[in-house]
Formats: sequence, C-alpha cells, structure tokens
Amino acid sequence: MAQQQTGRQEDIERENRFSSEDDHKLKAEAEGEVFSIEKAFEGKEIPSWRKQLTMRAFVVSFVLSILFSFIVMKLNLTTGIIPSLNVSAGLLGFFFVKTWTQFLSKSGLLRQPFTRQENTVIQTCVVASSGIAFSGGFGSYLFGMSERIAIQSGDTKLGFKDPSLTWIIGFLFIVSFLGLFSVVPLRKIMIIDFKLSYPSGTATAFLINSFHTTEGAKLAKKQVRTLGKFFSFSFLWGFFQWFFTGGNDCGFSSFPTFGLKAYENKFYFDFSATYVGVGMICPYIVNVSVLLGGILSWGTMWPLIETRKGQWYSNDLSQSSLRGLQGYKVFIAIAMILGDGLYNFFKVLSRTLSGLFHQVRARNVSSGLPIDNSVPEYPKLSYDDQRRTRIFLKDQIPTWFAIAGYVTIAVASIVTLPHIFDELKWYYVLVIYIFAPTLAFCNAYGCGLTDWSLASTYGKLAIFTIGAWAGSSHGGVLAGLAACGIMMNIVSTASDLTQDFKTGYLTLASPRSMFVSQVIGTAMGCVISPCVFWLFYKAFDDLGIHGSEYPAPFAIVFRSMAKLGVEGFSSLPKDCLLLCYVFFGAAILINLIKDYSGKMGRFIPLPMAMAIPFYIGPYFAIDMCVGSLILFVWEKINKAKAEAFGPAVASGLICGDGIWTLPNSILALAGVQPPICMKFLSRGTNTRVDKFLGS
Amino acid sequence: MAQQQTGRQEDIERENRFSSEDDHKLKAEAEGEVFSIEKAFEGKEIPSWRKQLTMRAFVVSFVLSILFSFIVMKLNLTTGIIPSLNVSAGLLGFFFVKTWTQFLSKSGLLRQPFTRQENTVIQTCVVASSGIAFSGGFGSYLFGMSERIAIQSGDTKLGFKDPSLTWIIGFLFIVSFLGLFSVVPLRKIMIIDFKLSYPSGTATAFLINSFHTTEGAKLAKKQVRTLGKFFSFSFLWGFFQWFFTGGNDCGFSSFPTFGLKAYENKFYFDFSATYVGVGMICPYIVNVSVLLGGILSWGTMWPLIETRKGQWYSNDLSQSSLRGLQGYKVFIAIAMILGDGLYNFFKVLSRTLSGLFHQVRARNVSSGLPIDNSVPEYPKLSYDDQRRTRIFLKDQIPTWFAIAGYVTIAVASIVTLPHIFDELKWYYVLVIYIFAPTLAFCNAYGCGLTDWSLASTYGKLAIFTIGAWAGSSHGGVLAGLAACGIMMNIVSTASDLTQDFKTGYLTLASPRSMFVSQVIGTAMGCVISPCVFWLFYKAFDDLGIHGSEYPAPFAIVFRSMAKLGVEGFSSLPKDCLLLCYVFFGAAILINLIKDYSGKMGRFIPLPMAMAIPFYIGPYFAIDMCVGSLILFVWEKINKAKAEAFGPAVASGLICGDGIWTLPNSILALAGVQPPICMKFLSRGTNTRVDKFLGS
Repeated sequence: MAQQQTGRQEDIERENRFSSEDDHKLKAEAEGEVFSIEKAFEGKEIPSWRKQLTMRAFVVSFVLSILFSFIVMKLNLTTGIIPSLNVSAGLLGFFFVKTWTQFLSKSGLLRQPFTRQENTVIQTCVVASSGIAFSGGFGSYLFGMSERIAIQSGDTKLGFKDPSLTWIIGFLFIVSFLGLFSVVPLRKIMIIDFKLSYPSGTATAFLINSFHTTEGAKLAKKQVRTLGKFFSFSFLWGFFQWFFTGGNDCGFSSFPTFGLKAYENKFYFDFSATYVGVGMICPYIVNVSVLLGGILSWGTMWPLIETRKGQWYSNDLSQSSLRGLQGYKVFIAIAMILGDGLYNFFKVLSRTLSGLFHQVRARNVSSGLPIDNSVPEYPKLSYDDQRRTRIFLKDQIPTWFAIAGYVTIAVASIVTLPHIFDELKWYYVLVIYIFAPTLAFCNAYGCGLTDWSLASTYGKLAIFTIGAWAGSSHGGVLAGLAACGIMMNIVSTASDLTQDFKTGYLTLASPRSMFVSQVIGTAMGCVISPCVFWLFYKAFDDLGIHGSEYPAPFAIVFRSMAKLGVEGFSSLPKDCLLLCYVFFGAAILINLIKDYSGKMGRFIPLPMAMAIPFYIGPYFAIDMCVGSLILFVWEKINKAKAEAFGPAVASGLICGDGIWTLPNSILALAGVQPPICMKFLSRGTNTRVDKFLGS
Repeated sequence: MAQQQTGRQEDIERENRFSSEDDHKLKAEAEGEVFSIEKAFEGKEIPSWRKQLTMRAFVVSFVLSILFSFIVMKLNLTTGIIPSLNVSAGLLGFFFVKTWTQFLSKSGLLRQPFTRQENTVIQTCVVASSGIAFSGGFGSYLFGMSERIAIQSGDTKLGFKDPSLTWIIGFLFIVSFLGLFSVVPLRKIMIIDFKLSYPSGTATAFLINSFHTTEGAKLAKKQVRTLGKFFSFSFLWGFFQWFFTGGNDCGFSSFPTFGLKAYENKFYFDFSATYVGVGMICPYIVNVSVLLGGILSWGTMWPLIETRKGQWYSNDLSQSSLRGLQGYKVFIAIAMILGDGLYNFFKVLSRTLSGLFHQVRARNVSSGLPIDNSVPEYPKLSYDDQRRTRIFLKDQIPTWFAIAGYVTIAVASIVTLPHIFDELKWYYVLVIYIFAPTLAFCNAYGCGLTDWSLASTYGKLAIFTIGAWAGSSHGGVLAGLAACGIMMNIVSTASDLTQDFKTGYLTLASPRSMFVSQVIGTAMGCVISPCVFWLFYKAFDDLGIHGSEYPAPFAIVFRSMAKLGVEGFSSLPKDCLLLCYVFFGAAILINLIKDYSGKMGRFIPLPMAMAIPFYIGPYFAIDMCVGSLILFVWEKINKAKAEAFGPAVASGLICGDGIWTLPNSILALAGVQPPICMKFLSRGTNTRVDKFLGS
C-alpha cells in the first residue's frame, strides 16, 4: 500500500514513479538479505482468515483512521498535496498492537500472538478508511458544489448544494462499496496470473514482513520513538503557534520571511511542520517542480499580467473574480493539470492494452498453468511463490457474491442518488455503472503496472461527459460534479483493494480478511471522514475562501472544470484561452521530453506539480524545499541514518501537526479565540499604528 | 586565565567557584594523562622572550580584541553578566595563527613555528584588552556619570558628565597601567614561593599546552569548526531578527512567549543567542539563581508592591522614578549585591591574612629554599616545576623599573585626573594611590587562592569612602564614581597580570613577554573599548534607558550607590530601607548557609546572581535556562561530546551575536532602519488596529 494514498491522487501521482524506485531498492535489499522470506517465517503458524480479523486490530484501525483522516483532510483543504502516509500507518499499527500484546503477554493474558497477517489487516483498514477522506472529494468535487465556492466562482445561477452531514454520509455509503465488488472476481488474474508488480503494495508487504522478524522489530521500535519525538514537537509547535493567531494575517503562518514585498506575492516560509514533513517524503523533483511553478507563476507571470490590468481585464472586478487575474490563475492551472493528466491517461492506457494483449496471447499458448511474464527466466515457481499462491487461493470469495453485491448496490444507487442530487438523473447513474467496472479494471491494472492511480482523471472524464450531457440549463455543473464523485470512488477503491490483495499475497494474509477489512475500513471512512470535514467546516468560517488558512484550492478548480464542460470558454478573460492552450501543450511537451530523454528525464520538472502553486501561491513550496534541504543535508552527513529515520521524522512532523488540528478546531468551535496577534507591519504603518494606539 | 573575565566581575564572581572545580578536574585529567607535561615538550625549543612577541600574535590579538570588546560591551549594556570568553579566545587565537603558519609552511615561507609561548602571548593580550571593556565601566560607573542616567535617577543636580571619546581614552590610559606595575615585583612570591593555584590561569595553561600536542590540535580543530558553525548561525539569526525590529517593542526580542501578561512582568524568551550561550557556559546554579531571583522579584514582590501604589509611594510618579516602584527594584538589588559582596570580601580577606601568616611563618623557619605549602608531602620539586621555575626566573623585570613606572604614572595621574573630573581633588587621587598597591596585592592574592576577583567590591568601597569624603555639595557622586573607576582598574589589572604570570609559568612563557603583552593589550583596550562604546552610544539613541534594548542596568545601580554614599537613605520610598536591610541580611545568611552546609551548599542559590534580575527583569534568565536545558539534555545523551563541544557551541553563539552588533550599529549609524515591525497585540487591540488600518 506504500504510496497508495498519493497514488490515488492524480495531482502528484508522478511522484510515485520516483518513490517506487526506492521501493524496488528496498525490495531488492530485503530479498538480498533473506533469499527466501517465507523460509524465515516457516515455523510460524498462519491464523485462519477469521482469526486475522481481531477486535484489537479494528480498534487500532479506528484510532489511526481518525488520525489519518484529520491529516488527509487538512492537506485536502490547504494545498491538495497528499504524501504517502502508509509508512506511519504501518509503523503506528505495529507499535500499538505490539505494545498491547507485549503488555498482555507479560500479564499472562495474551491468547493470540500478533502476526503479520493481522498487521496487514490494520494497514488495509486504515488506508481504506483514510482514503475516503481523499476520494470523498471534500477538497474537490463535493465542496465545489457549495454556495461558498459558487459565489467565489461567480456562478451561483448554475446551482449549488451546500454540504450537510446526512447527505454526505449517505452518498459515500452508496458509492464507496461498488469498487470493491467490481474487482473481487479479477483478483486471481491480477495477482497470480498477471503477476502485476504493485510497487507500493509490495513495498508495504516487505515493510510488514520485516517488522515481524527480530531485527526488524528493533529498528521499528527506534523508528517509532523518533516518530513519537517529532510528533510531540510538531504538535506542541502547532499549539504554540495558535496563541499568536488572534486575528487575520496573524501568527507564524503569515511570517514575511523574505520581506513584505515577497509576502505579497506569497513567497514566504509559513513554519508549517506538515509541509516540511511532506517535503521530506516527496522526491526532490516534486519539491523543485513546485518551487519552479511558483517562481514562474507568482514570481513572473502574475506580476506581468497585473500590469495589464484595465486592458486585459476590467479594473473594477473583485480580487477573487474569475474574470480577472484570478481567472488566469485557475484556468492556466487547470490547463496544465489536464494536459499532464491526458498525456498520462493515454500512456497508461496504451501500456494497459499492450500488457493485456500480451497476457491473453501468452495464456492462449500455454493454458492451465499460471504464467509469470515479468520473470520469464524462472518458469518454475519459487518456494515463496508456491506457498503464497497456495494460501492466496485457499480462501475463495465466490464470483456470484461479487456480482450480486455489485448489482444490489448499483440498483440501490440508481434509486437513491437522484434523490440526493436532483440534477443527477437516474439514467446518468446507470450509464456510469455500466462503464464503471471496465474503468475500475483499467485503473487497477494500470496501477499494478505503473503504481499510478488515475482516479481523479477518470473523475474529470465524468465531469466533462455527464456535465455536457446534462447541459448548463439542467444543472450540468452539479450533475457533473456528482458524477465525478461516483466515478472517483469506484475506480480509486478498486485500485486500492487490488493493491491490498497484493500486500496480502506477500504477507500470506487471506483475500477474505483483506476484503472484510477493506469493507470495514470503508464503512469507517464513510462516517469518520464526513465528521472530520464537518468539524473543519463548522470550526473555520473562512474554509474554502481564497487566501484563508484553509483555501481548499481544488474545490474551485473542479467547479471551474465543470463550468468549462457545460459552458465552454466564453467566460474566460482576454488571452486566457491562448495561455491555457500554451500551458496545456507545454505540459504534454514536458512529459514527452521527460519520457524520451532517458536518464536525464528525472531532472525535468513535473507539470502537474508545477501547476499546484499557480493557484494557491508558492509558500508551501518553500516549506517543502526546506524539508528537502533538511533531508539533503542529513543524507550528506549520514546517509544510512537519514534513510532509516527520515520517513519517521517526516511522518512525525505531519502527524503531530495534523492531530493538532483536532484540538484547534474544537477550540474554534467552542469559541475560544487565541489571545495574541503577531502582526507584521511595514515601518511606516507601524509608526501610524503606534500613534493611533498612543492617542 | 580561564574564567578570568567573569572573575573580574564581582556580580557573578561566585560562579567561578563552580567552574574552578571543573578546572581542577581538567587539570587532574591532564596530569593523569601525561605524568610530566614538560617531558612531552622536551625536544621543543623555547624561543627567547623577544621572539615570543611576534607581529602576527599582535595582529591576531588586535582582531580578537575587537571581537571580544564588542561582545563584552554588549553584555555590559544588556544585563552585566559576562561569562568567561577565554576558551574562545584561546581557541580562536590558536586557529588563526595555526592556519597562518600552516599556510606559510606550505609555501615554504615560514621562518618561525607557532609555539605555545606565542599562544600564551595572544591569550594574555586579548584578555587584557577586552578586560578594559569591563573595567572601563561603560556599563557601570563611567556611564553612571552621564546626564541620561542622572535624569532617570532624578538627580541631575548632583552633577553629571556625559561620555566623550577623548576624555574616556585619556582616563583609561592614565589609570589602566598602574595595576601592572604594582604586582610586577611580587610575581616571584605569588607564583614560585606561595605557589598560588590561580585555577583559571592554570586551566588556560593546560588548554594551551594540550593544543600544542598532536592529539590536542586535532580536537582543537574540531572545536573550532563547531564554534564556526554556531558563530555563523548566531550571526545570521541576529541578521534575520534585525529585519523585524522596525519600531519600539518590535521583533523577536519582544516575543511574549508565555503570553502578554507574563510579558508585562518581563517573563518571556527573547531569542537571544548570546544569553542562551551564556547559560551554557555558566554553571547550573547561576542560571537557577537568576531564575529564582526573577520569580521572587518580578513574579511576586513587585506585583505585590504595585498593589500598594498610592499608599507606599505617590501615584503620580513617572515609571522610572526612583521614588516609586523603580526605587524598590534598584535599592533592594543594591542591598543584596552589597551583602553578598561584603560577606565575600571578609571571607577572602580572612583567608588572605591567614594564608599570608602561614606563608611568612614557614618562610622564616626554612629561609632560602622555595616553599610549597600546598603540597607539603613533596618537598622536592618535580621535573616540571624545576624546569618551569628555571625559565620563570631567567627573564627578570627589575624592581626599580616597576617602582619607577608606578611613581611616574601616579604623579601623572594626580596632576591630570582632577582636570578630567573637576570634583576629584588631587588629594583623593593621592590617597587612592597610596592604598591601591595593598589592595591590588590583596586582590591578586585572593584571586590566586579562590579564583575570585573582587574588583568591583573594591570599586564600591572607593565610591562610598571618596563619595562621603567629598560630600554631596562638592560633587561627591561624580568623585565617588571616578574613584571607583581608578580603583577597579588598578585591582582588576593586578589580578589579571598575576593570572597571566601563572599561565606563562605553566607554558614556559617568559614573564617579560607576559608583561609586554599585557601592556600592549591594555593599550589596545584603552583605544578599542571606548571606540566600541562610542559606536553603541551613537548608534542606539535609547542606550541606557530602562526597558530599551541596551538598558545598561548597572549604570543606574552604581549611580544610586554613589548617591546613597553622599546623601544617606533619605530619598528611598516607604519601607524600602527595611526591605533593603532584610535582603542585605538574607544575602549574608544565604552565604553562611551555603558555606556551612557542606556538600549540599552547591544546591543553594547565589544571592549575587539572584539580585541581577531584580532590576532588569527575568527575561534573560529564561534564555540562560534554555541554554542550561540544552546542555543538560546534551550531557544526558552524550556526556563526553557535550563536555568537549559545549563550550565551543556556547562561544559560537555568543561571538556570532556579539559580532552582529557591529554591522547592526553601523546600520543604525547610517540611518538604515529595519523594514518590518513584528508586533504583538492582544486580540482586542488587534481588532481596533485592523479597523484603523482598514479605514
């Protein structure tokens, strides 16, 4: 499951290519160490699938789900960049259950030892649950329906639907389980026959396997201690910062580190432990791309366009009007995201089709035996593979069960969804459900090959097709956004579950326990995520407002895409369309250069990452580069230590700051306001203020 | 010379007792390692005393003198706590000359290798020069004469004399050389006959000796690198902070870390790298004492006394009036300082007298042979001692030279000083010069026994006696302060030079080169220190104002003492005298308990350290405790590393911040003001300010 959370999100999915290289290395090292992993575990009994699903595993999963939902939600609502949290999930899951079982074993009460299968169950459940926080679209399509975003986008007449706890939970329950059923029948083909690599799932499996050896447990303990230290630091830092935010533009998050002029153009270090941590996890190229994008947009283009104020766009527009400068920011970013997304969609599609073609042909030639096309030089199965395959095939999930489940949920959806969204006709839903299994398969297969989940690209596809079908007069914007949600949920859970099957395959966990764990995790997520979102929504009044603490940048991006789909390009300011074409083309060109320049390709920035600061500004890029810098210096000083503990430090920073948002939002809800404002004034303004306060 | 700078300053001289324990350990370890140090150096030639005085040594000394003068001046003008900088002086001196000689030796141009004697010369010169920055009284008696302090003290009618570059340099040249001549004839008695320990001088000698072995040079190099790193960090941090100080109460130095209420009572962390470094050098008990004093005064007493406003003192006094709350702060602090000073004066005096008595008696019994009463079990001299004694006695300084020098300077002083200070009659100066050699001897002897220099206690003695003699109508305040300056300079240089003789004795440096180096260093200091002070004085308009960045707390304390001497207690607010008696008694009582409670004594706070925050507030105590905490945690993690590199880190922090004040004051002089004000407002005020700025 490693990198899966990021993998789910198309917006920086390219990152995974780089981290999966690391994963392969990790895998290679692990294999180099113990030639046969399963031989090392030979004496250990494998519990039955029912026994893998322990109460304690789900209690721990529940706690961790809340933690990670907060983190993912915060990231959704700030920049939309979500790094892989699976390392911390694996570590913390191991830590909690291990502590608990050690405690029980000392007091003689332990009935069932902690196994790697149980660990996989926790991992699966947590990732499934916190995945909903992303695929639920709280920072994108779902919040893009709200009146608040519609007002900023200047198109309330196109319809809006404000979030409410009840309909969100209902909606998620209806759409989130379909993906699970759609891939269950295909698991043997994907894992055993096609032997897809699923780099993230594989890496996680190796991590879990290593934890359950004696050496691994020792390292894991040290990592957990490091994580704990930085967790506390980050939490306390968040708490400390809070005291100084008693007003707008107050506190460390408005610190004009490079001067007031740079601050106006959003170049500043905002002291966010989260994004320093994110920067430590993301590959250097992602951080550099984001910074480059920031310099290109806020450092060059926007100041230049601003000089055309009055010529290219009207003087008397509000700051947030999409007909003014804001329009350039949003639509150029969309153009770049779409260009990059489209390029990768076709790239993955072509690889999927050619992969399938080869698989099917090979199958026809030597039918019966499982085929291993990725390692053709070993036609015989290794000991590990034999054992894994046997276990994997032991616990079956009947195909009729999967089909029945799919049809039942699909019918229920077709009946209920139009009641939630008036604009979403029942036949739109039916059409989506007819095509969905194919797309789900495509996404699961592509993810297995390349480690990229293209969920949000499929979502955007739904926005444009359903939106255009409905048309602007029939609430096409809302219909498009809702369709996007259905599509994203199906394809993203499909690829997740297949990843989990792979992890389970490698840790000898039963497919049944994986499935049950994913179902339970998804159910948890359908309740936890909306509640967490609700907390944010109620606690921070300016949630989603451009320039606020939680701008939810992708909400307006998704809404603008839906508007483009139903309305065309008529609403764009002057020359914006031309610039959009240029950046759309540039995104494709950069990708082509990247792919065809061989080894040098890894030094070419990622258009998707470059597009993010176009809209929200480069301040978080500075945080991320600080994270990169810390890791870089650490690697120079002690590479081994940096590699072993870097992810733990980063996770600690992210988790601590993430969980601080819980008390933070509770304080906000309770009406407790911070007592002090740390304000930054120019010398001249300060003299005026001092005079005002003195008089 | 270790701890000498602190030793010079009575205000925290108690600290030395603790550091000298460490010094003894250092010495013991060094002796344990090489039984005979001189045997390790046997092959090395000792240059003649003229060759020890190289041009390069004085160039390096000059550069370091400027650096340390800045640091000492900054400390003088902020809190008056000056830690020992001799470690950094030794390290940096070694580093500069070593780099230079290595460079020359590689290019084949090196004519004279770098010896430990030369290193001792640098050390001596730098300490002599930067010592003037303390004994020149820029933060105490000298600045206490100025109109600015007189206004705050509310007694301009008692006379004032504003600082000016010319008369300060003249004054220092006249009074700073006397001390040197007064102890020259006594050096053989102190060092060879009495074998006084001079812990700081001994520790420095061991440091220098160790640098010039191969092992020591390696460690020194590492330490210098650490020092350099933290120097840069501290310098850049100072630079960064500067940008945010565009106004009063702006920037990190006004950061209400513990809230605005605590800030009003001066409880906050002011992000000063200097005082974090100082805290790392000072023993834990000093830091704890300072914090305790702060809690006692600003946390308890002043808020309580403030509730009596209108009863104990008038309602309509200015904040800085000594007839109000400010009076309690200043005079209670003085009472405690005097109580502690008096106790230690009598303690050291009694030890001096009893020591002398034993020495003289033993000398009478077995005359002729040098006597070692501190190690009576070794009547024969060791190889080291023989060699050291031979070298020490080789280069003589004739007694007639010393006496002639003393008389010449004394006559010049008696003639010129009354022209600088009209209030200082020639017969006051004559009386001081008659008693001075005795007191200088007492101080040098006491310092050799206990490592405490009581220079400022002797200075206070002069304030009270000469001040009372002159009387308030005849400018007793100014006369007293000037007399204090003469006395402090004589007794402090006397103890310094004797320390240096000890260091020279242990590093086989010639007494002549020590003397010349001290003379040159003093001459440098007489020019550098006033210039540095002048830079501060001209650059910071609010220098010496209570509550400003450079409050120079001891200036008003010294002036108030002089006023007490000439006027009596009539000007004190209600019950202040009673409180003064209580704290005077408490200081003596605490000292008694400390001395008679054996091992537990080291857990009892130091009254002198407690008194400092009484007047200026506990904020710097928080910095120092942060320094303590860092060192404490470091020692827990890796004691060996913390001991080897702690002083280097601390020195780096102090030096970097200290040298930043140079560009800082130049910027201020050039009229370049910082662009941003980082302001801290309560939420309510912030709302008002936002409304004001919005309209």
